[in-house]
Amino acid sequence: MRIELINTGTELLLGRVLNTHQHWICRRLADHGYVVNRATTVPDTGPEIAAAVQEALGRADLVLTTGGLGPTSDDRTRELVAELLGLTLREEPETLARIKQFFASRNRPMPDRVRIQALVPQGALVLPNPNGTAPGLAIDASPNPFRAGGPPAWLILLPGPTRELRPMMTDQVIPLLLQRLPRTEPFVCRTLRTTGLGESLVEERIAGSLDALVRGGLEAGYCARNGEVDIRLVACGTDAQRLVAEAEQAILNTLGRHIFGFEDELLEEAVVRLLQESGRTLAVAESCTGGHLANRITNVPGASKVFLTSLVAYSNQAKQDLLGVSPETLVRHGAVSEAVAREMAEGIRRRTGADIAVATTGIAGPDGGTPEKPVGTVYLGWTDDRGTRVLKRINAYDRETFKQITSQQALELVRRALLREEREAEKENPAG
Amino acid sequence: MRIELINTGTELLLGRVLNTHQHWICRRLADHGYVVNRATTVPDTGPEIAAAVQEALGRADLVLTTGGLGPTSDDRTRELVAELLGLTLREEPETLARIKQFFASRNRPMPDRVRIQALVPQGALVLPNPNGTAPGLAIDASPNPFRAGGPPAWLILLPGPTRELRPMMTDQVIPLLLQRLPRTEPFVCRTLRTTGLGESLVEERIAGSLDALVRGGLEAGYCARNGEVDIRLVACGTDAQRLVAEAEQAILNTLGRHIFGFEDELLEEAVVRLLQESGRTLAVAESCTGGHLANRITNVPGASKVFLTSLVAYSNQAKQDLLGVSPETLVRHGAVSEAVAREMAEGIRRRTGADIAVATTGIAGPDGGTPEKPVGTVYLGWTDDRGTRVLKRINAYDRETFKQITSQQALELVRRALLREEREAEKENPAG
Repeated sequence: MRIELINTGTELLLGRVLNTHQHWICRRLADHGYVVNRATTVPDTGPEIAAAVQEALGRADLVLTTGGLGPTSDDRTRELVAELLGLTLREEPETLARIKQFFASRNRPMPDRVRIQALVPQGALVLPNPNGTAPGLAIDASPNPFRAGGPPAWLILLPGPTRELRPMMTDQVIPLLLQRLPRTEPFVCRTLRTTGLGESLVEERIAGSLDALVRGGLEAGYCARNGEVDIRLVACGTDAQRLVAEAEQAILNTLGRHIFGFEDELLEEAVVRLLQESGRTLAVAESCTGGHLANRITNVPGASKVFLTSLVAYSNQAKQDLLGVSPETLVRHGAVSEAVAREMAEGIRRRTGADIAVATTGIAGPDGGTPEKPVGTVYLGWTDDRGTRVLKRINAYDRETFKQITSQQALELVRRALLREEREAEKENPAG
Repeated sequence: MRIELINTGTELLLGRVLNTHQHWICRRLADHGYVVNRATTVPDTGPEIAAAVQEALGRADLVLTTGGLGPTSDDRTRELVAELLGLTLREEPETLARIKQFFASRNRPMPDRVRIQALVPQGALVLPNPNGTAPGLAIDASPNPFRAGGPPAWLILLPGPTRELRPMMTDQVIPLLLQRLPRTEPFVCRTLRTTGLGESLVEERIAGSLDALVRGGLEAGYCARNGEVDIRLVACGTDAQRLVAEAEQAILNTLGRHIFGFEDELLEEAVVRLLQESGRTLAVAESCTGGHLANRITNVPGASKVFLTSLVAYSNQAKQDLLGVSPETLVRHGAVSEAVAREMAEGIRRRTGADIAVATTGIAGPDGGTPEKPVGTVYLGWTDDRGTRVLKRINAYDRETFKQITSQQALELVRRALLREEREAEKENPAG
């Protein structure tokens, strides 16, 4: 089954608005085994929309569009599609009544132009819109005029506003697809999230163990992001479940603790979860990450129970006064040094009583580098009841990426510290 | 000039990753007068990529692709494009040396597969990648094999990782386009950034003064984001410069200090600039913003000279020990209260000696709300040599939006405090 998505909106192509519809719709469809083969974004101009719809119908069994169903003069999708498929538009009394009711229930007068939203192409299914005025439309293009002799196609038109589109998709479109276009074979998609290895190294390590499964139909994909690599396992058919499960086990065996989570879990979520599970608390002293690390941790609901404090000690004075870093250390080694990272981590742990503390000090740039300590130099200190360690890294990136990658490394150090503790606890009490 | 963008990535069509490249690239191009006519997203499979590139070349004068230049087996764009255009791939020694140097400078071994990134289609311009290993490629498809007798086309291949793509686009692709594909008529796009007024209020206040200019061809657009409204002024043709300049002046006269910046200037950049200009320092005490505020401020290069400290005091203990909030205040009023916001702001100013301090305390949710203090309740305290003030807001959004909007409000309070100080220094007006 071939599926295409068309998002309309000039603002998308002027780069003024992020195309969140594409992401959200593709994800909802994939969760039910419907994988989009192509997504096209076009402006709100008639010829561009018409061309995109016609081309998609020429290739696909299912085409979804978003936007252009509203009441203003640049909302043209309904009319263009009716023309393209040679369907007449008729005002549907039930739809008109619903639109009138929408305005009446809000004590607002109904502008005249809104009435065009009650126009329905002959033969289309109307998808009522409880959160707005423009209904969605599902058209069974059978025969498909743009694929002579080919199979029929479904064309589904959805409204643009997010709060209207999402419930319509979940409550009406997905059930319609499951009924009218049932997937004939199982589909499984699983994402494993890794950290601490580059993309090519990840593939190098696991490729061998996946060979047989790939020959059997497994598809493995890699996506590198700041400080992470996602491994995506996809399979179709009766064997899908087994292929993906065996691949996952093989990867777990090979990469072990480089895998921090599954599906959409973020590294900070994994860290907060491990802290909660182990009943431990965390404190942070940030210089070069400047609050990025604290911000990521506090994005996780429930972080307040395990995350005590971050001190963003940008100035040397703050490092002395608030963290207890000694002036001699600052003078002798400089603020970006192993010794200062150590004293920052120990200082914030001492002052907050946290079980684990981590500290970052480095040169984010673009200025401040020297030949001995170039931009990107960073020291990461971490400390717990087993002592203090410091790691040096060179993260030579732009300022924001530097912060992102450095905070990723700091989170990974905390995660590793928590996992070692678990392992030790297991050794001490293997039955537990 | 027709422009098409092709983003490759199976993860995009599985809805695992948001297509931020589409947004960012369309915006950068539009800022220079290059408006994208269609954006297509395809998976990392050979036939889909090849078909999309071929179709786009059949219509457009400029085609940009992202992704598929990496070292893993699903990175196939370079190879597919060479095949499509009948160009041989050759290993380029200079590019290979740069890739080796990238690994050497990071003290990492170079995996063998990475070497394929030094392959260059015959005749292509190499766009060096200082932030990664895969260079970009610019190919002058002249004659264009997919548009018989038509004009030539430029095909530009960009790497997928954001930190590699963005600097390459800004530093290399835009200058290349301005030189090789210059716009034939003037195009002016100017963005004025406002805070403190809603979208409809912004339009209501300025629409009248823009009427004549809009009749003369000016296009005004509004884009509401978290705590900000952007006003976009666009004009084409010989009169473009004048139309936009007159509109800008009219808006400045009407909205005054609601305008905090122009083009891409962020509120945090305006605040750091004002701090630098007035020679003042800032410290922050964050509870509910959890480091978001510090992170935004420290994203600004040079912030270290004016930003002393943020204390992310998530726990009550930290508020007492590190900020000097009194235990009685915490017990009597609760952590989310006017009194605690006041003591947090005064505490961090006292402990750091900063000229201005700002504090946030509130309920980010999803849990923790009560009937008297629902999720979204926030107190913002700020203090300087003229005393302390506290503002209450209800920011009832999801957790991340709550942090974004609350930090926006805190930055705006600092900006207003700095502007009043400037005004006093100029002896224009006594403090209100």
